[in-house]
Amino acid sequence: MKIGVILSGCGVYDGTEIQEAVFTLLAIDENGADSVCFAPDIEQHHVVNHLNGEEMKETRNVLVEAARIARGDIKSLNECNVDDLDGLVIPGGFGAAKNLTKWAFNGPDGEIDPQVKRVINEFVLAGKPVAGLCMGPTVIAKALDESKIKTTLTVGTTTEKSPYDIKAVSEGMEKAGATAVMKSVREVSIDLENKIVSAPCYMMEASISEIRKNIKDAVDSLIKLI
Amino acid sequence: MKIGVILSGCGVYDGTEIQEAVFTLLAIDENGADSVCFAPDIEQHHVVNHLNGEEMKETRNVLVEAARIARGDIKSLNECNVDDLDGLVIPGGFGAAKNLTKWAFNGPDGEIDPQVKRVINEFVLAGKPVAGLCMGPTVIAKALDESKIKTTLTVGTTTEKSPYDIKAVSEGMEKAGATAVMKSVREVSIDLENKIVSAPCYMMEASISEIRKNIKDAVDSLIKLI
Repeated sequence: MKIGVILSGCGVYDGTEIQEAVFTLLAIDENGADSVCFAPDIEQHHVVNHLNGEEMKETRNVLVEAARIARGDIKSLNECNVDDLDGLVIPGGFGAAKNLTKWAFNGPDGEIDPQVKRVINEFVLAGKPVAGLCMGPTVIAKALDESKIKTTLTVGTTTEKSPYDIKAVSEGMEKAGATAVMKSVREVSIDLENKIVSAPCYMMEASISEIRKNIKDAVDSLIKLI
Repeated sequence: MKIGVILSGCGVYDGTEIQEAVFTLLAIDENGADSVCFAPDIEQHHVVNHLNGEEMKETRNVLVEAARIARGDIKSLNECNVDDLDGLVIPGGFGAAKNLTKWAFNGPDGEIDPQVKRVINEFVLAGKPVAGLCMGPTVIAKALDESKIKTTLTVGTTTEKSPYDIKAVSEGMEKAGATAVMKSVREVSIDLENKIVSAPCYMMEASISEIRKNIKDAVDSLIKLI
């Protein structure tokens, strides 16, 4: 069994949330499946100094930086072929909303990378399961925006503490044609019909152990849908 | 309980091995303890493109890049005070041997960062436990080189597959005054007298699940020594 993982850089503020990506790779291995990492071969939207939050005057490539998490074992998203894989996971981090789409700047009106859109639609149309973690579900919502597929997704709940505006992001996903549901970091959302799993992860205020558990549950659910 | 974690950048080939660092933070949290991340506020030895292994013509700061793994929650190693902490972990990656010491270039004769040397010696002299993962034990060996403390460390075993020269690194640690022992990725070495734990992790050919388990065992052992 082979599971594609779409990374969007390396670091929560301008790329993939590192801890979420690592727990994704761990949970896939624990299920006896192989991870195949991909990232778009494009420039990052920007580079953020993770110590002080300020933008840095440099450019970095999404694929090259994502290779840090994958220990070099990663391919360009152009090479991602749905026929070679059994499922797909999109971890979170601002890279999902800055590099895979431009949701961080324009919400559901922000553009999506054409390769990201292609891959997600191919998986869903082939009946192969897709999981979105943290901000990952917004990428799925945006990818399916123009198709007739109506899915259900979560980015968290407004009833528990979050560093982000869960209401606004949920409304954005509704605007993109999805149904947004409220889930805590101890829950996952499963759209059985379209085989789409989503989990809030670091969209909510949570400990690293809670993130690990939330991702384990999401990946276990994805594997069961194969 | 507070455990210091010394990071050396972000990425196996020029910084901290990301997966090892994340599993360290997870295992500390699972033990009900808090992680306090530190990194030296110095320039990286160099920057490696993790996609093709080539050196990149840029400069990056160890502390700023390590902040990616710690989600911004990290301090300069200058601020690390042994009185505030109960234990210390040094994950691996080439950053340990390129930024914390220069072992990658000069073996045990390579210089060690003065703050790294200070912190490790303060912990050991205070009887507080220290763990080194992967290449981390070479940093401990080098730090204790000039003191009278004779410890036992492992960086793996020559009897199982490794991408590295375990014999040469072990001999280097002996030259630095430590006793090197052979351990598989399913084992940890514990020096009860000096409260020093070491584990081979990615020094050996291993799956991500084996790395997770090896680090859980090492951190559990460290916590028991407190």
